[in-house]
Amino acid sequence: MRLSELATASGVPPATVKYYLRQGLLHPGAQLGPRSADYEESHLRRLRVVQALTEAAGLSLAQVKTMVELIEHPQEDLFTALGAAVAALPPMAPRAEDYPRARAVMERLGQLYDPEYAAVAQLEHALAAAEQAGLQISEERIDAYGSAVRRLAEYDISNMPEADAPSAAVEYAVLGTALYEPVLLALWRLAHQHLAAQRLPGD
Amino acid sequence: MRLSELATASGVPPATVKYYLRQGLLHPGAQLGPRSADYEESHLRRLRVVQALTEAAGLSLAQVKTMVELIEHPQEDLFTALGAAVAALPPMAPRAEDYPRARAVMERLGQLYDPEYAAVAQLEHALAAAEQAGLQISEERIDAYGSAVRRLAEYDISNMPEADAPSAAVEYAVLGTALYEPVLLALWRLAHQHLAAQRLPGD
Repeated sequence: MRLSELATASGVPPATVKYYLRQGLLHPGAQLGPRSADYEESHLRRLRVVQALTEAAGLSLAQVKTMVELIEHPQEDLFTALGAAVAALPPMAPRAEDYPRARAVMERLGQLYDPEYAAVAQLEHALAAAEQAGLQISEERIDAYGSAVRRLAEYDISNMPEADAPSAAVEYAVLGTALYEPVLLALWRLAHQHLAAQRLPGD
Repeated sequence: MRLSELATASGVPPATVKYYLRQGLLHPGAQLGPRSADYEESHLRRLRVVQALTEAAGLSLAQVKTMVELIEHPQEDLFTALGAAVAALPPMAPRAEDYPRARAVMERLGQLYDPEYAAVAQLEHALAAAEQAGLQISEERIDAYGSAVRRLAEYDISNMPEADAPSAAVEYAVLGTALYEPVLLALWRLAHQHLAAQRLPGD
């Protein structure tokens, strides 16, 4: 399809599509002549990824470019590739050598504690903030959250595209993280409302 | 305690404590003389709430002031008070008259669909973003997330301070939402990593 058709199909304005091409966020189409090129399904798919990461996840174009490169050229070891891509998504937490709160939680949940995992710093930061506010998370709450979250993650991982398509798996991890986290938080708030309505008699 | 002691105990610099007093974010202490006042446990607690909402939840001081007022003077109907307080927390989603995607999800999960609930707009926005990116959420995924989240919310609501202490309940809802959502997301990412490590053979 031509650039104008690609713009219509994706909902991205033609000027923005051209900008993404110049910035290397979108791969060039097949050249048809000096001033026209042919675009295909892979371009449409890429535009969706870029839009999702900029609009839904609020990433800068520089961050999106990093992400697109991680999806396009995943590292050979898929586990490392997945970790690197998700680590490039916000929130960014300050790195340290050790994360004592996160370590205690991982030990409690029987999960590997690896300070190199970006989400470990994120967890440490979140636990420290709760503690500072006088709302330290009890072991009982850790157990409740840990088992519910494990169930969620089992669903996600069992639906991950097969390991022989590393680009697809990395894209699933990045987009899933960026797009499904907001869905989960909204569902959680609505579940609170639903249960509070049952518990609290209305006026 | 004196202002300097309050500052030390809370970790908030004295100049910031004075600023919060002038802005009405912190209630005045008992006047001891023309230039000294006595502060107590309730001041320490309030400083923790303000710090948590500004630093951990990233709220502006104007938003924190709204929140503090909602905690201090909860509406008579506790269910409405809880909803108003949590609705004042980010993310803010554009309001509309109807939210078709969120409505379908609520119907599927057997929960009340009330377009006045702020989290309904948030859910609609998150579902639309996923759809636009070509990652429409399947009914199977809705069921998986919905039941895991319900379990989480049951734990939260069963630990809510009793309904005869509305300020405490509103504070729990606001701080719990602001502080535990980041914990949950970090735990989710770590559960993904844990399960991916089991599924993917390392090099």
